[in-house]
Amino acid sequence: MELGFIGLGKMGMNMVTRLRRDQHRVVVYDRSADLVSQATTHGCIPASSLADLTAQLNAPRAVWCMVPAGAPTEETIRALGTLLKSGDTIIDGGNTNFHDDVRRADELKGKGIAYLDAGTSGGVWGLEAGYCLMVGGDKAAVERLAPVFTTLTPENGWAHMGAVGSGHYVKMVHNGIEYSMMQGYAEGFELMSKSDYRLDLPRIADLWMQGSVVRSWLLELAAGALKENPKLDHLKGFVQDSGEGRWMIADAIEKGVPVPTLASALFTRFRSRQDDSFAEKMLAALRNAFGGHAVKR
Amino acid sequence: MELGFIGLGKMGMNMVTRLRRDQHRVVVYDRSADLVSQATTHGCIPASSLADLTAQLNAPRAVWCMVPAGAPTEETIRALGTLLKSGDTIIDGGNTNFHDDVRRADELKGKGIAYLDAGTSGGVWGLEAGYCLMVGGDKAAVERLAPVFTTLTPENGWAHMGAVGSGHYVKMVHNGIEYSMMQGYAEGFELMSKSDYRLDLPRIADLWMQGSVVRSWLLELAAGALKENPKLDHLKGFVQDSGEGRWMIADAIEKGVPVPTLASALFTRFRSRQDDSFAEKMLAALRNAFGGHAVKR
Amino acid sequence: MELGFIGLGKMGMNMVTRLRRDQHRVVVYDRSADLVSQATTHGCIPASSLADLTAQLNAPRAVWCMVPAGAPTEETIRALGTLLKSGDTIIDGGNTNFHDDVRRADELKGKGIAYLDAGTSGGVWGLEAGYCLMVGGDKAAVERLAPVFTTLTPENGWAHMGAVGSGHYVKMVHNGIEYSMMQGYAEGFELMSKSDYRLDLPRIADLWMQGSVVRSWLLELAAGALKENPKLDHLKGFVQDSGEGRWMIADAIEKGVPVPTLASALFTRFRSRQDDSFAEKMLAALRNAFGGHAVKR
Amino acid sequence: MELGFIGLGKMGMNMVTRLRRDQHRVVVYDRSADLVSQATTHGCIPASSLADLTAQLNAPRAVWCMVPAGAPTEETIRALGTLLKSGDTIIDGGNTNFHDDVRRADELKGKGIAYLDAGTSGGVWGLEAGYCLMVGGDKAAVERLAPVFTTLTPENGWAHMGAVGSGHYVKMVHNGIEYSMMQGYAEGFELMSKSDYRLDLPRIADLWMQGSVVRSWLLELAAGALKENPKLDHLKGFVQDSGEGRWMIADAIEKGVPVPTLASALFTRFRSRQDDSFAEKMLAALRNAFGGHAVKR
Repeated sequence: MELGFIGLGKMGMNMVTRLRRDQHRVVVYDRSADLVSQATTHGCIPASSLADLTAQLNAPRAVWCMVPAGAPTEETIRALGTLLKSGDTIIDGGNTNFHDDVRRADELKGKGIAYLDAGTSGGVWGLEAGYCLMVGGDKAAVERLAPVFTTLTPENGWAHMGAVGSGHYVKMVHNGIEYSMMQGYAEGFELMSKSDYRLDLPRIADLWMQGSVVRSWLLELAAGALKENPKLDHLKGFVQDSGEGRWMIADAIEKGVPVPTLASALFTRFRSRQDDSFAEKMLAALRNAFGGHAVKR
Repeated sequence: MELGFIGLGKMGMNMVTRLRRDQHRVVVYDRSADLVSQATTHGCIPASSLADLTAQLNAPRAVWCMVPAGAPTEETIRALGTLLKSGDTIIDGGNTNFHDDVRRADELKGKGIAYLDAGTSGGVWGLEAGYCLMVGGDKAAVERLAPVFTTLTPENGWAHMGAVGSGHYVKMVHNGIEYSMMQGYAEGFELMSKSDYRLDLPRIADLWMQGSVVRSWLLELAAGALKENPKLDHLKGFVQDSGEGRWMIADAIEKGVPVPTLASALFTRFRSRQDDSFAEKMLAALRNAFGGHAVKR
Repeated sequence: MELGFIGLGKMGMNMVTRLRRDQHRVVVYDRSADLVSQATTHGCIPASSLADLTAQLNAPRAVWCMVPAGAPTEETIRALGTLLKSGDTIIDGGNTNFHDDVRRADELKGKGIAYLDAGTSGGVWGLEAGYCLMVGGDKAAVERLAPVFTTLTPENGWAHMGAVGSGHYVKMVHNGIEYSMMQGYAEGFELMSKSDYRLDLPRIADLWMQGSVVRSWLLELAAGALKENPKLDHLKGFVQDSGEGRWMIADAIEKGVPVPTLASALFTRFRSRQDDSFAEKMLAALRNAFGGHAVKR
Repeated sequence: MELGFIGLGKMGMNMVTRLRRDQHRVVVYDRSADLVSQATTHGCIPASSLADLTAQLNAPRAVWCMVPAGAPTEETIRALGTLLKSGDTIIDGGNTNFHDDVRRADELKGKGIAYLDAGTSGGVWGLEAGYCLMVGGDKAAVERLAPVFTTLTPENGWAHMGAVGSGHYVKMVHNGIEYSMMQGYAEGFELMSKSDYRLDLPRIADLWMQGSVVRSWLLELAAGALKENPKLDHLKGFVQDSGEGRWMIADAIEKGVPVPTLASALFTRFRSRQDDSFAEKMLAALRNAFGGHAVKR
């Protein structure tokens, strides 16, 4: 079918490449003319602006937005809201907070524009393996886009989660779980890295892929990363987070659900980004104050 | 090759079944004559006692011990120590603490008996898929047993981890990671179970198996369990632990390694087994004491 | 000096009682005429409505709002905004989120009405001991109200924290710390309650008040509560939270500050309010799925 | 009364000073002749060896051991076991694990020597304020030593906890609670240190001492430390732990008691002592592996 596609970053470029393999007609736009030009090598049709992109599509139009979450997505969707018409559909495939989805869908509903949220998992590997897509929003619009979803995903790799926002909601929980799993592996491998047994970490990661209870795709990636550098000594332990973990904690707090491993995982990331911890200094100061324990200066 | 096998519980019976498929000569013993008799239907040779078992094996003998960790394993291995001779090998395939392995191997070394520790993962699914085996101990003894390990495991599914105890050490860490992963999924699915979106949890678990970052074998099992009963309302949330998580925390504390998600996961299990929490009563009592906040009686 | 006072609950009634001891002129209103009437026994002047209350005060007027946080406070302050005039001051002494303070102060500024936020700690004991007051907002308004703050607090018991919202911000952090401290005591006393030493918990709480590092006012309250009932078996471990802990986590997440004990303390409260944990059921289901471990039904 | 005292470090010297104020006869020994000589200025009687110390005491003798926990205490008590006679008493005032108390008391019982464990809290402030003493062991021996305990403590500042080991057990829990409280304050003050309100932290710590729910002795110390250096920028956040927190977690795990804030507090200390976290590197490596997210090298 036909799709407008905005945002040709790492994820976006891979997605349009995959869409072209199935011969969809894809009109693309990105702020970078270079990236647009690169997409044309996959058979995409270039657009020079959002207006140009929407003009090159046939009604009912569908436009996939794959730009960074937050302001860039917000602005893009606001602009599309003025360019599109009743019957058209916007799909936000980025990492949007589900509360924003609900608000936007509500705003666009007045104009008859459908808004779908597509939580997208799979990272840089999605080009070959396909992405896992969790889709929220109006059922009819979801069905209209089914050919696109099917192309982007492995077999049975997409599903309609429910009302608008539910796709990003499920993706948010997915990412929260991802944090816990990553942290679990990280704790285990750190401990093994300190063992007197001088364990062969990449070998163990590989071995666990064969029939163990902890086998997973993340473990497969861990095996690869450890093979490249078993001590990881080329890396700084500086770990970003992209928002979903935070939102999941906010939602868990709202619902009164304990999420201790998610919180631990997120706090570990926060700590990894501190050069210097005021809290830890305060602990040292207190120990000194009551016990005269030595402090490092 | 030839192997003595002690302990025909859930794990043990599956393992001898698998060993017989590859035509190994397996002499079996269990306290339950019924289980011994059941094993003979797979072609195992019955033994009526440990002495009988060791008498039916040819030197150098190898005996696999697959009985509950703790006292049962301790007693079995002590008894084998008096029945076996120099050149023989004992393999402990249970959930033994690696410190015990080191002590036992040391005791048996004086008699020339080799002691191997085989951390075994895969649960009830190992019969078909093969187990993941992490083996520690003397290298020559490990190599002698290679045909047995190969039969029990999927391709590349076993490896020599290092000195005695290292097999169970790596298995301990494996289980600790397993706790964190399980807890991560549990937090995520609980949150989704409370969502107004009325999410289809089994469908989501299934979907995530298709290309998502959190795909894993545990998730596959989760999908199965949720399909059977999406609300899990046939279950009590009473969660046992088998020791490895505790030992991993002890080891992490000894080495000064933070393991926050493992600890959270273990404490969740503890809490699940309390009908009544003194700590929570005390919190209620304190809130009442300073703020006059109502308490439930 | 003169003060309007709205909200005669547990906290409010104690505060007006204390204000009357210092001969302040206090005009009171509460939705409950009974409470208003009760306050008059302390020499307060009754008002039959917010309008009546503001009418009985002399410019520049000051009105203290001590009603439940959230909607009741919001509505009261909105109403006061229409009744008060330029030069008047509203003090919110409740448990308001500091973001709401900032918004309200901004709205009222246009009318020339000052808005102060007074974080109030001390609970039911404040009547005798005085409250600890953390005050945020316009400095001149704070100084005008100094006589009221001085009456309500012990010596040096109030201070101007900074711009509007800072009083409730510091109070929020105060409560978050309170959660961690309470949880620390609760963990320790639960452990001791399970000791084979058959420890005398109220005696220990008392003892620790004499020169130990953990002596505190909360411990003094714990000693009292344990003396009344050493096993706390008259209580349900059902623990509410009043919002500040949640907001502090939200703020910590925004600033990237790890708050692991606060999060643990809050999650313990959440768990205490669950009869039944989906997460724990899922753990049981997963253990059953991979290991055939028995579940309770 | 009369007391032998071994170990004249920070704690020991303060304790003998306090004992001399009440005119007890105190015979002292330390490996450092300088410290022994310093103690004589307080009226202590010097001993040149353990044998010399025991020789200068009258039966039934009592010897207080105040040397570092672990090997130094173990060796001292073993030596005393050969020097003392039936009817004598050893008091271990150090930070001993209660399991060691039980073992030692058992060994000494055969010789008729009583062994008491005295958990001691109060730090460097005990000299003036008195220590809080939690005493375990034989009741008759405890009563014999009462005059010593009374001198060392503030009013009602010591108590008999129960059988041998109970004193150190309660002290262990005391320290675990101390960790949680310290961590709670540390989290709160770190958050406030990052606030746009530019909060005056020493002022807040002081203010909270006046009637707030979180007032405590640790907070008083925090106020002092923050006054000296509000940003704590003269300190490294390197935080030691002295064992009790670890033992309390081990005991909690044995008893199945959740201690999430204690564990968080201990892990924060571990992390504070790492220059470099393998776990955090692994998280960075995994994010890079699945998402192509940038890493720092």
